[in-house]
Amino acid sequence: MAEPLFKRLALIGIGLIGSSVARIAMERKDIAAEIVVNARTQKTLDRVIELGIAHRVEIDPAKAAQGADCVMLCAPVGAFADIAAAIAPYLAPGCVLTDVGSTKQSVIRDVGPFVPAGVHFVPAHPVAGTEYSGPDSGFTTLFQGRWTLVTPLPDGDETAVERLEELWRRCGAMVERMEPAHHDRVLAIVSHLPHLIAFTICGTADALEDESRQEVLQFAASGFRDFTRIAASDPTMWRDIFLNNREALLEMLARFMEDAQAMSRAVRWGDASYIEGRIELGRKIRRSLIELKQA
Amino acid sequence: MAEPLFKRLALIGIGLIGSSVARIAMERKDIAAEIVVNARTQKTLDRVIELGIAHRVEIDPAKAAQGADCVMLCAPVGAFADIAAAIAPYLAPGCVLTDVGSTKQSVIRDVGPFVPAGVHFVPAHPVAGTEYSGPDSGFTTLFQGRWTLVTPLPDGDETAVERLEELWRRCGAMVERMEPAHHDRVLAIVSHLPHLIAFTICGTADALEDESRQEVLQFAASGFRDFTRIAASDPTMWRDIFLNNREALLEMLARFMEDAQAMSRAVRWGDASYIEGRIELGRKIRRSLIELKQA
Repeated sequence: MAEPLFKRLALIGIGLIGSSVARIAMERKDIAAEIVVNARTQKTLDRVIELGIAHRVEIDPAKAAQGADCVMLCAPVGAFADIAAAIAPYLAPGCVLTDVGSTKQSVIRDVGPFVPAGVHFVPAHPVAGTEYSGPDSGFTTLFQGRWTLVTPLPDGDETAVERLEELWRRCGAMVERMEPAHHDRVLAIVSHLPHLIAFTICGTADALEDESRQEVLQFAASGFRDFTRIAASDPTMWRDIFLNNREALLEMLARFMEDAQAMSRAVRWGDASYIEGRIELGRKIRRSLIELKQA
Repeated sequence: MAEPLFKRLALIGIGLIGSSVARIAMERKDIAAEIVVNARTQKTLDRVIELGIAHRVEIDPAKAAQGADCVMLCAPVGAFADIAAAIAPYLAPGCVLTDVGSTKQSVIRDVGPFVPAGVHFVPAHPVAGTEYSGPDSGFTTLFQGRWTLVTPLPDGDETAVERLEELWRRCGAMVERMEPAHHDRVLAIVSHLPHLIAFTICGTADALEDESRQEVLQFAASGFRDFTRIAASDPTMWRDIFLNNREALLEMLARFMEDAQAMSRAVRWGDASYIEGRIELGRKIRRSLIELKQA
């Protein structure tokens, strides 16, 4: 068996991503010799102990981070600035400080200023998930066949970046480096905008008069259901993502709204060939996904 | 075994729905003693013979309908007026003329005027589907646990309506009656709008600069993928649905666009509690679906 990459991995937050990493690290043993978990409530930490997915738990993030040679922020991105301020004085020299947030420019903005000299800050984002959250939701195969995007800082330590990339490979992920602003644009269209749309259409349906609303549920199988799966995701996490990828999300939403208005106009004026063309595009993209084994 | 409900069932069009009905009827034998299938091309009819899902095939819809005591229109709704004009003179007295279209007011508008006296026109809509189409796509369990909505005309023959309802129950469906205009509003929000949105966002993604477009496919698992499944549906069928449920679809789309604009505004101005509220709604609706076993 390979040597553990880290002596002590501290997970700050233990939702779907954190608890999946914890499960994998406890099982594989070549990621970290010791797993320390922090959460905001003792109830969550008690559950972590019951699940057996940590060697040690700490209610104080600073105590969890202290002495760790890898600290991974797995909380909603809106909490990162406060967490960074709390743990920064306790980070060990040479420690790799990383995160799993879905927005990267905001993380660099919020965490960067607190990073002490000698600590290697390597932002990253495992692009994987389900609609479930909390310490019970994780599983060891979550990252298999999925990408982890690493967005190193221009002056980042190459060895630290490579160690983190190796951690993600051992978690089962494929790894790619990306520029933070580009990451945020890509994620805005593939993830953040679809979630925003899914939440919105649920609200639109819910606002219909009572009888129709009931029928939305009854006949959901005809299309609506596909939108509700992602609409079941964690509210705090998604609120934070929307607010922390504002520019890119608003741009993609504006492009989508223009395109939806064009479809609306085509429906109103009976422009059959325009409508068919847009539908053909959807089929083409679906086919490409199937070829790429992403669907 | 129960007596067959009909002596001869003619299916005009043999896509996902038609070929599922054909498979069930061939297997159960208590729906119709004879199954006749019409399609627009000899190639499709040859395939129907190969698949063994009809007793007889006819390239001329009038010949297929002639002498049948149940004629079911299973083509895209935009073709119904022409089909009705072609078959009307050949329909047998007492015959039940029905359809499976996703829009009901347009079907009544397009088919109704051609229906000869003594023929019982009973519009219906099995609310079931996949993203696949064509005679190979059907399967015998498609309608199980799904609803078929029957939208009888005010002066419709009650016996004919009940025979059709029994046909759908024997296909495995649950049956409910609904007023045509109400049907069209409900389907606009649960099915037509989600499809329009899915097609649109595929177009929005496809219009991005080349590099990002490739990455949309690479990282689709993070939400986008859920939209592409329904975006793979048949272009002609969906073009016809959009154009034939124009008023209800435009209304639901307008409501959705207002709600999306409100989300956009909340993101721009950092209205965290508004965003959280909308996300909570999505979760609530998902939970209701799971309770109703529709998800």
